[in-house]
Amino acid sequence: MSEKYRIEHDTMGEVRVPADALYRAQTQRAVENFPISGKTLERQNIAALGQVKKAAARTNAELGVIDDQRAQAIADAADRVIAGEFDDQFPIDVFQTGSGTSSNMNANEVLATLASRALESEGVDVHPNDHVNASQSSNDVYPTSVHVAVTHALVKELKPAMETLAASLEKKAKAFADVVKSGRTHLMDATPITLGQEFSGYAAQVRYGIERIESALPRVAEVPLGGTAVGTGINTPDGFSGRVIELLREQTGLPITEARNHFEAQANRDGLIEASGQLRGIAYSYMKICNDLRWMGSGPNTGLGEIHIPDLQPGSSIMPGKVNPVICEATIQVAAQVVGNDTTVALSSTNGAFELNVGIPVMAANLLESIRLLANASAVMAEKMIDGLEADEERARFLAEASPSIVTPLNKVIGYEAAAKIAKHAVANKMTVKEATVDLGFVSDGQISEADLDRALDVMSMVGEYNR
Amino acid sequence: MSEKYRIEHDTMGEVRVPADALYRAQTQRAVENFPISGKTLERQNIAALGQVKKAAARTNAELGVIDDQRAQAIADAADRVIAGEFDDQFPIDVFQTGSGTSSNMNANEVLATLASRALESEGVDVHPNDHVNASQSSNDVYPTSVHVAVTHALVKELKPAMETLAASLEKKAKAFADVVKSGRTHLMDATPITLGQEFSGYAAQVRYGIERIESALPRVAEVPLGGTAVGTGINTPDGFSGRVIELLREQTGLPITEARNHFEAQANRDGLIEASGQLRGIAYSYMKICNDLRWMGSGPNTGLGEIHIPDLQPGSSIMPGKVNPVICEATIQVAAQVVGNDTTVALSSTNGAFELNVGIPVMAANLLESIRLLANASAVMAEKMIDGLEADEERARFLAEASPSIVTPLNKVIGYEAAAKIAKHAVANKMTVKEATVDLGFVSDGQISEADLDRALDVMSMVGEYNR
Amino acid sequence: MSEKYRIEHDTMGEVRVPADALYRAQTQRAVENFPISGKTLERQNIAALGQVKKAAARTNAELGVIDDQRAQAIADAADRVIAGEFDDQFPIDVFQTGSGTSSNMNANEVLATLASRALESEGVDVHPNDHVNASQSSNDVYPTSVHVAVTHALVKELKPAMETLAASLEKKAKAFADVVKSGRTHLMDATPITLGQEFSGYAAQVRYGIERIESALPRVAEVPLGGTAVGTGINTPDGFSGRVIELLREQTGLPITEARNHFEAQANRDGLIEASGQLRGIAYSYMKICNDLRWMGSGPNTGLGEIHIPDLQPGSSIMPGKVNPVICEATIQVAAQVVGNDTTVALSSTNGAFELNVGIPVMAANLLESIRLLANASAVMAEKMIDGLEADEERARFLAEASPSIVTPLNKVIGYEAAAKIAKHAVANKMTVKEATVDLGFVSDGQISEADLDRALDVMSMVGEYNR
Amino acid sequence: MSEKYRIEHDTMGEVRVPADALYRAQTQRAVENFPISGKTLERQNIAALGQVKKAAARTNAELGVIDDQRAQAIADAADRVIAGEFDDQFPIDVFQTGSGTSSNMNANEVLATLASRALESEGVDVHPNDHVNASQSSNDVYPTSVHVAVTHALVKELKPAMETLAASLEKKAKAFADVVKSGRTHLMDATPITLGQEFSGYAAQVRYGIERIESALPRVAEVPLGGTAVGTGINTPDGFSGRVIELLREQTGLPITEARNHFEAQANRDGLIEASGQLRGIAYSYMKICNDLRWMGSGPNTGLGEIHIPDLQPGSSIMPGKVNPVICEATIQVAAQVVGNDTTVALSSTNGAFELNVGIPVMAANLLESIRLLANASAVMAEKMIDGLEADEERARFLAEASPSIVTPLNKVIGYEAAAKIAKHAVANKMTVKEATVDLGFVSDGQISEADLDRALDVMSMVGEYNR
Repeated sequence: MSEKYRIEHDTMGEVRVPADALYRAQTQRAVENFPISGKTLERQNIAALGQVKKAAARTNAELGVIDDQRAQAIADAADRVIAGEFDDQFPIDVFQTGSGTSSNMNANEVLATLASRALESEGVDVHPNDHVNASQSSNDVYPTSVHVAVTHALVKELKPAMETLAASLEKKAKAFADVVKSGRTHLMDATPITLGQEFSGYAAQVRYGIERIESALPRVAEVPLGGTAVGTGINTPDGFSGRVIELLREQTGLPITEARNHFEAQANRDGLIEASGQLRGIAYSYMKICNDLRWMGSGPNTGLGEIHIPDLQPGSSIMPGKVNPVICEATIQVAAQVVGNDTTVALSSTNGAFELNVGIPVMAANLLESIRLLANASAVMAEKMIDGLEADEERARFLAEASPSIVTPLNKVIGYEAAAKIAKHAVANKMTVKEATVDLGFVSDGQISEADLDRALDVMSMVGEYNR
Repeated sequence: MSEKYRIEHDTMGEVRVPADALYRAQTQRAVENFPISGKTLERQNIAALGQVKKAAARTNAELGVIDDQRAQAIADAADRVIAGEFDDQFPIDVFQTGSGTSSNMNANEVLATLASRALESEGVDVHPNDHVNASQSSNDVYPTSVHVAVTHALVKELKPAMETLAASLEKKAKAFADVVKSGRTHLMDATPITLGQEFSGYAAQVRYGIERIESALPRVAEVPLGGTAVGTGINTPDGFSGRVIELLREQTGLPITEARNHFEAQANRDGLIEASGQLRGIAYSYMKICNDLRWMGSGPNTGLGEIHIPDLQPGSSIMPGKVNPVICEATIQVAAQVVGNDTTVALSSTNGAFELNVGIPVMAANLLESIRLLANASAVMAEKMIDGLEADEERARFLAEASPSIVTPLNKVIGYEAAAKIAKHAVANKMTVKEATVDLGFVSDGQISEADLDRALDVMSMVGEYNR
Repeated sequence: MSEKYRIEHDTMGEVRVPADALYRAQTQRAVENFPISGKTLERQNIAALGQVKKAAARTNAELGVIDDQRAQAIADAADRVIAGEFDDQFPIDVFQTGSGTSSNMNANEVLATLASRALESEGVDVHPNDHVNASQSSNDVYPTSVHVAVTHALVKELKPAMETLAASLEKKAKAFADVVKSGRTHLMDATPITLGQEFSGYAAQVRYGIERIESALPRVAEVPLGGTAVGTGINTPDGFSGRVIELLREQTGLPITEARNHFEAQANRDGLIEASGQLRGIAYSYMKICNDLRWMGSGPNTGLGEIHIPDLQPGSSIMPGKVNPVICEATIQVAAQVVGNDTTVALSSTNGAFELNVGIPVMAANLLESIRLLANASAVMAEKMIDGLEADEERARFLAEASPSIVTPLNKVIGYEAAAKIAKHAVANKMTVKEATVDLGFVSDGQISEADLDRALDVMSMVGEYNR
Repeated sequence: MSEKYRIEHDTMGEVRVPADALYRAQTQRAVENFPISGKTLERQNIAALGQVKKAAARTNAELGVIDDQRAQAIADAADRVIAGEFDDQFPIDVFQTGSGTSSNMNANEVLATLASRALESEGVDVHPNDHVNASQSSNDVYPTSVHVAVTHALVKELKPAMETLAASLEKKAKAFADVVKSGRTHLMDATPITLGQEFSGYAAQVRYGIERIESALPRVAEVPLGGTAVGTGINTPDGFSGRVIELLREQTGLPITEARNHFEAQANRDGLIEASGQLRGIAYSYMKICNDLRWMGSGPNTGLGEIHIPDLQPGSSIMPGKVNPVICEATIQVAAQVVGNDTTVALSSTNGAFELNVGIPVMAANLLESIRLLANASAVMAEKMIDGLEADEERARFLAEASPSIVTPLNKVIGYEAAAKIAKHAVANKMTVKEATVDLGFVSDGQISEADLDRALDVMSMVGEYNR
C-alpha cells in the first residue's frame, strides 16, 4: 500500500494522503473527519473559489505581498480550477466545518501544488497559507466564493431560463387570445376570461420572479472579501479589499461589490437568505402555474379538459392508455424542494454568533441546488410542456357559456338581487341564463329587451380589454 | 390619579400598580417591559398555573414546608384561578421573559394577594416567593403548566372534536357506499371507486390523527416539576417531585408523569415540539380532505359537480347567486396557521441553552392556539359541512363510466398493450370503451365475447370489497 | 329577546341580526359560520377597507355610476371607519371565506347603514352591493385592502421603528469605538475587534432590513383594484381602475400603483409572500443581534461579561438577585413568531387556483401581526435595552489580550506554521503570546525584536480602520 | 452511433435505448423527460422496489397469476437488485412523475430483461407489465417501496447509530458525575449542577429521539400494496394483499403491515410526514446538544472553557493554532438540512388529490437523505467528539463557586428578599457569596452561623440526587 499514499504534514502533524492527490494534509483530515453525506461542493462554488484565489494572487502581487512569479502561477492554476479541470480534487463533504475553512484550505492546497509544480524547475515553492492564502482568511474567502457563485448562478443560469419560460408563456398568451373560458374563483364558476389572459398572468408571474431576483442582487453581490479573520482586515495591506474586489468583478463579469459594512458582512449571510426567500417565492409561483395547468388539462373525460398537455410517456403501469401531466408534477416537486432548501438556508442564520456564521457550506449547497433545479425546471417546462400545449377551444367556450356567473352584467340593469334570482333559477332548473331570465319574466315585463339580453350575455363581451 | 395606584415593592425597588389589581410589583414591571403584542396567556395556561400552584401548596403542607392554613388558602385561591375567575389579572404579554418567570410571578402574586386577604382577619400574610412559590422555580413551574395545559387541550378538546368529525365522515361513508364515481390519479381519469370508499379514507385519516396525538402524549404529559432552578431540585424537600406530580395528576385527571430525566426535562421542550409536529400532520390531512371536497363540489356547471356542499352564505359581492365552499376555505386557512405555528414552536428549540429554553411562552401560545383552531374547525366541518353534504349520484356514475381507465380489467384478458390501444381509440374518437373495443375488432375476432366485455366493464364490479 | 334582534335579509333569505348592529345579514351569517379563532381583522385592514370604499365611491360618482349624494355619504362614513370609530362593527373571524368576501360585505353593510342613516331625512337609501360595492368585487377589493394595509404598516410603522433602533445602535457604535475586545469565530478566540465595530455591524444589519422592505415595496404596493371578479374588470366603467387607484394613492399618501397585469394580480398574492420573506430576514437578523448581546452580557461571573444589559426586572422566582436579558428573549420570541407567520403566509400560496387565492385573510392577519410585532420589538429594544447598555471595558480588553489569536500578525514575519507553534505553546503553558514567543526563542534568535513584537501584539493595532 | 443504441417500444411508440441497458423504453423516456437534478433514487429505495417485486412475483405464482418459472426468474433477478448489483440501471431523476411510475416501470423493465435472459434458453419471455407488474400498480408499489425503505433505514441504520451515541453520552455522564459546574439559565449564572447530570440529559434526549421513531413506526410500516390503481385492488386476485405483505415482512425482517384503510393509504403519505416530523425533532435535539458543547468548549481563553473538545484539524487559514468544534458545526448543519428536508416532505402533502399523492419521489429522497445524515452524524459525533471529550474540572468548579446563585439555599433560612440582597452585594463588590453574607451582618447578627453558612454554600450539596 505504501506506494499509493504519501505523507503530508500540517501544524497538527503528519497525514497520509493519496499519492496522486493535488490536495494535502488539511483536505485529507477533512475527508476523514466528515464522512457524512457523500455530497461535495457544487461546481459553481469550486469555480468561485478559483476566481477569488486568482484575484487575490493578482492583488497580492500588485501590492507587493507575494512576488509576480508565484502570483502568475497561482492565477494560472486558478484558471484551470475555474474551468472545472480539477473538481475531483475537491472531495470534502458539504457537512464540514461551518466556515468552509476546509474547502478554502482545499483550494489553497490544490493551487499550491499546481503552482509549485509549474515553478518546480525554477526551484520555487508555493505555500498554501503563506502564498495562496496571503491577505485572506477562510472567513472572508469562503463566504465571498458563495456569494459569487450564487450571483453567477442567478444571473447566468436562472434568469435566462426564466426568460425562456416567460417568452413561451407569452407566445401562448397571444395564441390563446380569443379562447374564451369560464373564470373560476373559489373553484366555482365565475365570469368569463380568455385562456390568453390567464397565460399572460402566468408570464407576468415569471417576470415578477425575475424582478425579485434582481431586487435581491445588490445585497447578494456584496462580499466580505478583505475583512479576513473578523472583518477588521487584519493581515491585509492597504487597498487590498477595494482592489481584489475590483478584479473579481472584472474576472467574473458580475456586479460584485465590497461590503458596505465589513462587520455585518463577516458575521451574517443575510443576503443569501434574502436570495433564498426570493427563490421560494418563485417556487410557489411555479407550483400555482403547474397546478392550474394540470387542472385545466384534467380528464380526458372526467375533468375540466380545457387544454391538452403534450403526451410525454405512458402514465400508468396498470391503467392502459393513461397519460399524466408529468412535467407539472416534476416541477411541483422541484418547488417543494426549493421551499425546503429555503428553510435550511434561513434556519442557518441561527448558526451565526459574533464574527462568523458557521452554517455556510450547507447554505451554499442548498441555495445553489435550488437555483439549478429552478433553472432546469424552467427550461423543461418551456420546451416539453408549454410550447406544445393546445387549447380545446370548443369545450372552453361551452363551459364559459354554461357558467351561471355570466348573469353578472345584468346587475347594472336589474340589480344584484334580481340577478341572483336568475342565476339560482338557471342552476336549479338546468337552464341557460338566458332561458332563466326569460322564464322569470324579465323580458316579458320589459326590464330588458331580448336584444340587450343577448348582448349582455355574450361571453366575449365580458373579458374586457386587459392583456388582449 | 394618585388614588388609582398603589405602591408595591420587590427586590429591585418600588413600582406603581393599579390600585385594584390583585397582582403586584413584578407583574407590573413585566406589563411595562413588554408592550409588544397585546396577546396574553391562553386561558388553559392560566388554569394550569393554578393547578400547579395548588398541588405545590398541598405538597408543601404535607412535607412541612409551609403551614396548613396558608396551604389551604393558596389552594382555595388557585381553584378560583383555575375556574377562570381572574383571567383579567394575568395581563402580561406572551412576548416576555422566555422562561415565563413573569407569568409564574404573576400567579404567585395573585395567589398571595387572594390568600392573604382570606387570612387577613387572622393576621397571616402569604408571600409570593416564600410561600406560594415554595419548593418551586419558574423554570420547572412554567413549563409544567404548559405541558399540563397542552395535555388538557389535546385530550379534552381536540380528541373529542376529531372523533365527532370522524363519526360524521363515517356516516357519510356508509351513506355513499353505492355511489360509484371515477377515481382520479394525477388528476386524470382512473378506475372507479365509490364515494363511500373515499369518505372512509377521510375518516381513517382523521382517526390516524387521533392516534398521532395519542402516540405523543407520553412525552407531552411528562413534566419537569420538582427540578426547580436547574433540574437538581435545589430547595425542594425529599419526596417533593413525586408527590406534587401525583397530586397534579389527581387534580387534573390527566396522565401527567414525572420527568424520567430532570435535566432533559429542564433544558428542552422537545415533547411540545413533537406534539406540534403531530398537529402539523393533522393540519395537512384536513387540507387534503378539504381540497378534495371543494374540487368534488366545484361547479355548479363548469367543475366536477359530484357532490353538493351545503350553502351557507352568498359567495360574491359581484357575481349574483354564487355560493362557495367556505368551510373548506376556513379550514384550509386554519391548516396554514397550524403549519406556521408549528414552525414557530419547533424553531423555538434553538432558543434553549444549557439548563433552560427561553422560548416557552411563545411555544405555549402557538401550540394552544393550534389546538383550539383545529378543535373548532373539526366541529365546524362536521356540523356545517359534512353532515349536510349530498352526492350527485347520477353525475358521479356518468363520469365513472366515461373514464377510459375502465379498460383496465381487460389487461388480464388481452394484455396491457392491447388495452392501451382501446383506451386511446376511445378518447381519440369520443367513443365509450365498449364501442372502441368493438370497433377495433376484439369482439369480432373472438378475443372477448360481448357478454364478458359487459361484465368486465361494469363499473361497480371494479370497486372491490375494501371498506364496502 | 325579540327587541334585541332585528330581521335582515339577503339573497339567501332572512337572518336575525343584533338590533343595534350597523352590519346586516351577510356579516351575521359569517359570524355564525366561523366560530373558530375569536380573532378579527387587524385594525389596519379595516382602515384600508374604508380607504378603498371611499376611493371607489368618489370614482363611481365621477364616472356617473352612482350619484354624488350617495357617494359623499359613503365617503363620509368611510372616513369614520378609517379613523377606527367602528372597529367593533367588524366582528367576523379571520378564518372565514378565503377571499375575504365576508369582510368586504361587512364593510359594504356598515357603510350602507351609515350612509343610509345620513340620507334618511332625504329618503335616499344606500344599497350595500348596488351602491357601496359598485364597480367592485370582493376579489379585487379585499386583496387591495390588504396590500394597502401592509404597505401602510411597513412604511409608517415598521420603517420608523427600525430607524430608531438603527440610530440607537449607531450611537453605541460611536460610544464603544475604543472598547477593544476579543473577536470570536466558531465561538473560539479570534483576533481583536472593537465593540463599536460590532455595533456598527448590528446597525448595518438593521439598515439592510430597511432596504429589504423598500426593495419589496414596488410589488407590495401594486393592487388588483379594477379587476373586479376575475381580473377582466367586468362591471367597471372605462377609466375606473386608473382613477380609483389614483385617489387611493392620494388619500393614503402611500405609493400605491395599479397592477401591471390584472390576471397575475387577481390570482396571486406573491407580493405579500415577498414582503413576508423580507420580514423573516429581519426576524433572523434580530435573533442574531439579540443572541450576541445576551452572550456578551452573560454572567455576571461565569459568562463572558463584556457588556451590561440594563436590569429591568427580577429574573428568578427562586434564585435571588438574578437578572436576565429579558428584552433579548422577548425579541427572539418575536422573531420565532415572525418566522412561523411567514410559513403560514407563504404556504397560503398553495391555496390559490385559477383566478383567486382563497387564503387571503390569514395571510393578512399574519403579515400585519408580524409587522406590528417587529415594530414594537424594535422600539422596545432601542428604548429599554440598547440605549442603556454599557461596556465593561476592562474585562473586554483583558479578554482581547488573552486570545491566542493575537499571534496572527506574526504570520507575515515568521510564517503561519511558526506562529501556530507560538499560539499552541501559549495555551498549553498558560503563557501570554509574548511570553511564548520569547520562550520559544524567536526574540533571542533574532527573528523578531522585542520592540517589533510589542508593536505587533498591540491589540488596538489589529482592529483596522473599518467603521472606526 | 447506431451500434451503441437499440430500439425499444412501448405503447407510445419507439425509443432509442443505450445498447447495453437492462432497462427499456419507458425508463429511457423518463431519463429524457426529466433532466433536472442529476440525483437518482436512494439505494434503499431501489432495494425496496426489488423486495416488493420479489414478494409480488412469489404471491402471483402462489395465486396462479403467473407461472412458477417466471416468478422464480423474477425473484432471482430481484435478489440481485436488492443486493445493489444494478443501481446504475436506475438512472431516472428524483424529480419525475410524482407517483414514481417511471421508477416502478424502471424496476419492471430491468427485472423483465434479467428474467427474460435467464429464461432465454427456454424460449420464455417475461413482460414488464403483464408479468413483473402483475397484480400491481405504480400507485401501490412505489409508495410501498418508500415505506419499506424508510422503515429499514429507521430500524437498521438510524436507531443503532443513535444507540451508539446515547451510550457514548451515558459513559461520559458517569465519568463526569463529580464534575461540579455552574448551571446556566437565560445564559446567566445559576445554581450548581454536575457535568455528568448535563450529559445524562443529552443521553436522555437521544433516547427520547429513539422513542419518537418507534412511536411513528406503526404508521410508517403500514403499506398500500394490494390497492393497485386507486385503492380498490382492481386486477388483484383474492388474497393478494394479505399474502404479498406477509412475504414482504418475512423477506425484509421488518414489521411491515397492510394498510388498515386502503383509501387513506392510497391517497396520502401521512405516515412519511409523521416520520419526518420525528426526525426534525431529533435534528433540533442534536442542535441543542452541539450548541451546548461548543459553548462549554469555547475559548481557550476568552470563552467558558469548561470542557475540551478533541482537536481534529487546524481551524483557521489565517489564525495560527486555532482549533474549532468542527463536528458540532457539521452536525448543526446536518440538523438544518434535516429541518429543511422535513419542510419539503410535509409540504408535499399539498401535492395529493383524490386517490394519489404526486410528490412521492421527492418525499422519499428527502426522508432517506435525512435518515442517512442523522445516522452518519450520530456515529461521527460519538466517535470523533464525545468519546474523546474531556472536562476541565478545576475551571468548572471555580465557576460553580463564583456564581452568585449559590445564595439560593439561604432562601429557606433568611427568605428570598434578604438572599437577593446578598447576591447583589456580592456581584457589586466582587465578593464571594460568603463574604457578602458576612459583610452584610447575617452571621454577626446570628441569622446564620458560619458553619451553617459553609454547609449551605457547598456547591456539591446543591446538585441533588437526580442522575448521580
